[in-house]
Amino acid sequence: MSQKRKICVVITARPSYSRIKTVLTAIKAHESLELQLVIAASALLDRYGSAVNYIQKDGFEISAKVFNVLEGENLTAAAKTTGIGILELSTVFDNLKPDIVVTVADRFETMATAIAAAYMNIPLAHVQGGEVTGNIDEKVRHSITKLADYHFTSSENARNRVIRLGENPEMVFNTGCPSIDIAKKILEHQGLTFDPYEKYGGVGSKPDLNKGYVVVMQHPVTTEYKDSRKHIEATLNAIRQLNVPTLWFWPNVDAGADGTSTGIRSFREKYDMQNVHFFKNMEGDDFLNLLDSAICLIGNSSVGIRECSFMGVPVINIGSRQNRRDRGTNVIDVSYDENEIVAAVNQISSKNERTRSDVYGGGDAGEAIADLLETLPLQFHKTITY
Amino acid sequence: MSQKRKICVVITARPSYSRIKTVLTAIKAHESLELQLVIAASALLDRYGSAVNYIQKDGFEISAKVFNVLEGENLTAAAKTTGIGILELSTVFDNLKPDIVVTVADRFETMATAIAAAYMNIPLAHVQGGEVTGNIDEKVRHSITKLADYHFTSSENARNRVIRLGENPEMVFNTGCPSIDIAKKILEHQGLTFDPYEKYGGVGSKPDLNKGYVVVMQHPVTTEYKDSRKHIEATLNAIRQLNVPTLWFWPNVDAGADGTSTGIRSFREKYDMQNVHFFKNMEGDDFLNLLDSAICLIGNSSVGIRECSFMGVPVINIGSRQNRRDRGTNVIDVSYDENEIVAAVNQISSKNERTRSDVYGGGDAGEAIADLLETLPLQFHKTITY
Amino acid sequence: MSQKRKICVVITARPSYSRIKTVLTAIKAHESLELQLVIAASALLDRYGSAVNYIQKDGFEISAKVFNVLEGENLTAAAKTTGIGILELSTVFDNLKPDIVVTVADRFETMATAIAAAYMNIPLAHVQGGEVTGNIDEKVRHSITKLADYHFTSSENARNRVIRLGENPEMVFNTGCPSIDIAKKILEHQGLTFDPYEKYGGVGSKPDLNKGYVVVMQHPVTTEYKDSRKHIEATLNAIRQLNVPTLWFWPNVDAGADGTSTGIRSFREKYDMQNVHFFKNMEGDDFLNLLDSAICLIGNSSVGIRECSFMGVPVINIGSRQNRRDRGTNVIDVSYDENEIVAAVNQISSKNERTRSDVYGGGDAGEAIADLLETLPLQFHKTITY
Amino acid sequence: MSQKRKICVVITARPSYSRIKTVLTAIKAHESLELQLVIAASALLDRYGSAVNYIQKDGFEISAKVFNVLEGENLTAAAKTTGIGILELSTVFDNLKPDIVVTVADRFETMATAIAAAYMNIPLAHVQGGEVTGNIDEKVRHSITKLADYHFTSSENARNRVIRLGENPEMVFNTGCPSIDIAKKILEHQGLTFDPYEKYGGVGSKPDLNKGYVVVMQHPVTTEYKDSRKHIEATLNAIRQLNVPTLWFWPNVDAGADGTSTGIRSFREKYDMQNVHFFKNMEGDDFLNLLDSAICLIGNSSVGIRECSFMGVPVINIGSRQNRRDRGTNVIDVSYDENEIVAAVNQISSKNERTRSDVYGGGDAGEAIADLLETLPLQFHKTITY
Repeated sequence: MSQKRKICVVITARPSYSRIKTVLTAIKAHESLELQLVIAASALLDRYGSAVNYIQKDGFEISAKVFNVLEGENLTAAAKTTGIGILELSTVFDNLKPDIVVTVADRFETMATAIAAAYMNIPLAHVQGGEVTGNIDEKVRHSITKLADYHFTSSENARNRVIRLGENPEMVFNTGCPSIDIAKKILEHQGLTFDPYEKYGGVGSKPDLNKGYVVVMQHPVTTEYKDSRKHIEATLNAIRQLNVPTLWFWPNVDAGADGTSTGIRSFREKYDMQNVHFFKNMEGDDFLNLLDSAICLIGNSSVGIRECSFMGVPVINIGSRQNRRDRGTNVIDVSYDENEIVAAVNQISSKNERTRSDVYGGGDAGEAIADLLETLPLQFHKTITY
Repeated sequence: MSQKRKICVVITARPSYSRIKTVLTAIKAHESLELQLVIAASALLDRYGSAVNYIQKDGFEISAKVFNVLEGENLTAAAKTTGIGILELSTVFDNLKPDIVVTVADRFETMATAIAAAYMNIPLAHVQGGEVTGNIDEKVRHSITKLADYHFTSSENARNRVIRLGENPEMVFNTGCPSIDIAKKILEHQGLTFDPYEKYGGVGSKPDLNKGYVVVMQHPVTTEYKDSRKHIEATLNAIRQLNVPTLWFWPNVDAGADGTSTGIRSFREKYDMQNVHFFKNMEGDDFLNLLDSAICLIGNSSVGIRECSFMGVPVINIGSRQNRRDRGTNVIDVSYDENEIVAAVNQISSKNERTRSDVYGGGDAGEAIADLLETLPLQFHKTITY
Repeated sequence: MSQKRKICVVITARPSYSRIKTVLTAIKAHESLELQLVIAASALLDRYGSAVNYIQKDGFEISAKVFNVLEGENLTAAAKTTGIGILELSTVFDNLKPDIVVTVADRFETMATAIAAAYMNIPLAHVQGGEVTGNIDEKVRHSITKLADYHFTSSENARNRVIRLGENPEMVFNTGCPSIDIAKKILEHQGLTFDPYEKYGGVGSKPDLNKGYVVVMQHPVTTEYKDSRKHIEATLNAIRQLNVPTLWFWPNVDAGADGTSTGIRSFREKYDMQNVHFFKNMEGDDFLNLLDSAICLIGNSSVGIRECSFMGVPVINIGSRQNRRDRGTNVIDVSYDENEIVAAVNQISSKNERTRSDVYGGGDAGEAIADLLETLPLQFHKTITY
Repeated sequence: MSQKRKICVVITARPSYSRIKTVLTAIKAHESLELQLVIAASALLDRYGSAVNYIQKDGFEISAKVFNVLEGENLTAAAKTTGIGILELSTVFDNLKPDIVVTVADRFETMATAIAAAYMNIPLAHVQGGEVTGNIDEKVRHSITKLADYHFTSSENARNRVIRLGENPEMVFNTGCPSIDIAKKILEHQGLTFDPYEKYGGVGSKPDLNKGYVVVMQHPVTTEYKDSRKHIEATLNAIRQLNVPTLWFWPNVDAGADGTSTGIRSFREKYDMQNVHFFKNMEGDDFLNLLDSAICLIGNSSVGIRECSFMGVPVINIGSRQNRRDRGTNVIDVSYDENEIVAAVNQISSKNERTRSDVYGGGDAGEAIADLLETLPLQFHKTITY
């Protein structure tokens, strides 16, 4: 009797779920694979959008939950969250006995998944390695590359970089980014397919979206977390000056989240922002559909670099968080500066044209990755190629 | 008023201490540096030779102790030990507030030091990166390189490899290995300077060392830990066959240590090994002095590759643990095979000549590293060079 | 040479600090005692009032900080916070080597202090044992009594209860509650000694305090945390109905804090509460001075039962949190019911009289406890008395 | 549709398994109960007899394993093991969602089970509360009583003591000790039913058991762990002096285990003990059968107090570990003194009579407890009765 390969995917945050969702679907549908889904860290927490609810609504069964986010205003908490993650994921892996563990991208706590798997001699697959951003994520990302046995990159540049890092080229695959799979489906529909206010609640006024709107999503940057309040205020002031209908999304958990959140909250208490509505979170599909009809996306979300590039949505990318990432021509880079942001929005509004790009893949990453997970040799022993 | 830079060195095992000792001495002696010494993991445990006692005897003051070795017969314990290490070292760093953290080599639990420092935006220096061994240590070693801000390598090959890993060449220094500093001093004396039986006790018979003796030190290999008992038995049988005076050292802590230890213990209960004496541990200086007068070193200790190369002591290196490490002509590589080991000992005995090499440095690494720690810019933000 | 006894006090929350402050002062002033102050859990967190800032401002030196609050919406987080606390406090105690550890009251995470000390054979002193409340705190409180070696109770009833629990009567002392020491000093001044709006900021309108005002402080109850939102809404509605100047304090961290916080936040967004000002926190002295001039205190804070009893401030005590605690005649007990709360405020306003009580001590607990800590035999071995 | 109650039993050591086994069998057989078995701590470790193997051989399915024993020579390790236990058991309970958690006896790490359950509002049942021993276990035992909701005691004295501790008498049941259930079955057979040397291996000589033999099982005492080596040497010397066939069992894990183990090992290396055979562990049934035919049991195991009392086996109980436990007339108490031990063995040998007692129950505790677990109200809220 042939046994299914057990593929354990660890999701630690809402954006990671959006990013890996089509992989989960493809694994679940694959007749030779068994999906073991572990939900941990901020993916379990209400105040960061509780990804776990969406995951269950999407029909995925959860094998284990791990609460490991340590509360704190400083970077110590990020380190400790990772330590607790290793401690507990080891137990989870010891009980689930997966054949392969999959870790996604480069958030600090994904290191816990990578270390637990690597130390327990479980073959480790890394999705979205080899990218460049110039922040703490980069330490995490390349460090995980050196722990991983298989690499599923999002672009050809990323694949080449992973190989230069000394990985065996036969284990490095440019599958494209799974998030593009979703974006591809979204483009099948034109115009808003839902009422954001009704479906997602949120707080603040409800500007008329038919007149055009911008979307804001800006996360704190770990290496600059002491400035996170100042950074968010530049954007807040720009939006206030533009006075255009705006849909604003709360940041996800990170050292410095409190600075960003506090900045938004204080600004709201000080000014009457009649053109802005705030959302805590939104299902990935709806968010992309929302972006597809937006004037532009403002902030530093990787969605702007990635999905928006495939969809051709204009993006005003603020600050250093997405530095050096591969990008299409849809992106305008600006610094943490109110006036630069305003100027960029005006430029986009006046041009009104869109350009698409396949730099992050053609929309079939999920199935490509699942197929590889079935056939790749099970191995956890490697050596640098030079 | 100028403040001293606080340099926090984390020692997690007896061999790491031997390896970093001259760096500690140089930091302590440096008028612009303050040494913060943290002792953790097996360095605190009696059954692995309790490095902490030697450290205190050598006159170093300890800033904090962290017990974090989880007991267990499998690799899960190694992962969990690392998780607990991160959790606790974060607190230690938060309280000590070092300017630079120094982590040594590539044992699994050193990852805890690296992650805690990197995540807390404390500049991280890594000693002995860039080497190649082809085992789990390699995942750890290169992964730490990608987290570290400064690199002090032991050889020119290692330096080049760190640079190929995308590190800024201006932050990568071939200082040579600090363990060579000690070996250099040892060579000043000829012949045994102490009586091993009297000074270190140990168990077993006490063969006459004047007739020549071999030294054995063989650790389990993490990626092969299920075979550790079989591997140690090949060596035990070889020693039994050779019937030469033998000084045998217990292995250090690792997944699989129990297999190795059990193998030795059972063999001793089965056979009356009149030519073998067992030591739990020995001070680094004495160990090198002992090697200097030995016929050869047998096993897989990195001392054989490193210090013995500088000293010109013949080494029979068994199995994969030191694969691909730079080595001098003093090393004969054999597999886990009784007869190969016997043949190699006979070959050495018949030749009776020694060759020295500077591949791991010239014996001034400690001071070189301390000087760099004083002058390097304090930074924790980096990006890959390609 | 005689050595000072090292007394390690672990503070895990803002209210615990207020409660133990005069003990800290007395230990620090005591010539035979050395104070080792450890700050942990929510006492370090900004969003719960960051007690650590007040502690430093009050001139106490901190020996170690331990971040251990795990984030989460459920009770799992409370358990895990305690686990991490034990793990880290063990290391702290191992490094500080205290002669006696002091733990305060009955918050869930104080169990970590008690277990670490008891398991490490460090004599453990418990302040405020033997009280009855009928909630989860009671499990914690009596459980700690069974781990502690010395008991400093706040009332005679509490002392008797600790003795009935099988503790050696010679180790159980009714010292009175140290919080009364502060209340005693406060009574020396009449009228508000500071401007709360100016000194503590906060948000909301700024009602005129000269016309009389009420103070609200209501925490979620662990065993009822699913109802915490409904419970807080009863109080919010009562305050809205009364339309009296109100100073409202945010709750401290607990499972369920989110329900309480969310309830307050939503209510504020829905209604324009012109008579209410919200504070995040206040220094203990100022808070008592504020209460001394208030019409009454509303909520479930133990301050109402304890300090207010000594001061004679009328208290409307809501729900089960203070059930069965010893109380003076200053307390009116009501259920989670808008109308009951309104009626009680009206009753107090019409009566306008105050009655004091010494049920929680006479105001010299701090010195009494410090004196005992000097002279009690150092012991950690005990047996039940029956 | 009626759902089965999920009963989660946490086993943390080999002796706890023997003690609770008939409860597990009765829960498993009960049509209204579902057994969730969690194996943790030393019950997973080879060097303490790996209870997990016996458990699986006995046909119990394991729901989760938790490795949490921290290695160390001091009490710090016991505290940290407990902290890690809480951290991980919380996750296990969060995933298994039991209706009732059962914790057994009073080993230090059982506190982890109790705290995780109590803090998560899961009704907690405690087996073997209310006993008196005068050591650290007593702190643990009574502390757990104050956290538990249901109490299944082993004797009437114990039941009364739990009630005096302020527990609701309706929730305190003298079920007798489940270990007696096994002893009852053992008595059905007379004489040794197996060959200990053949079945359990072990080391040392193989004295002839037909001439009569003594059994030794002596654990280190936590509060006296610095003396554990001296204590074990008194017993070793007594056995050497008596020169009677002896079957000796290694101690279980505890702070101080190393002192005891080292003592035994050194003694063996020094003296040729021709009359002694050493076992690492033995299945509970076989051990009782072995005791049933022995001259006497020597040491401080609770088996001597408990099962041996029911079986009428003479016991020489050494030191303080079983102080104040209820006992039958089969027990002779001695101190850590070679000559006292020798005299007691001689006295037993000369008398040669046996007396049975039902002080620890009549042998039906397993079923009684399972029946209670089915019918007791699910509650986690309690208050002290006075």
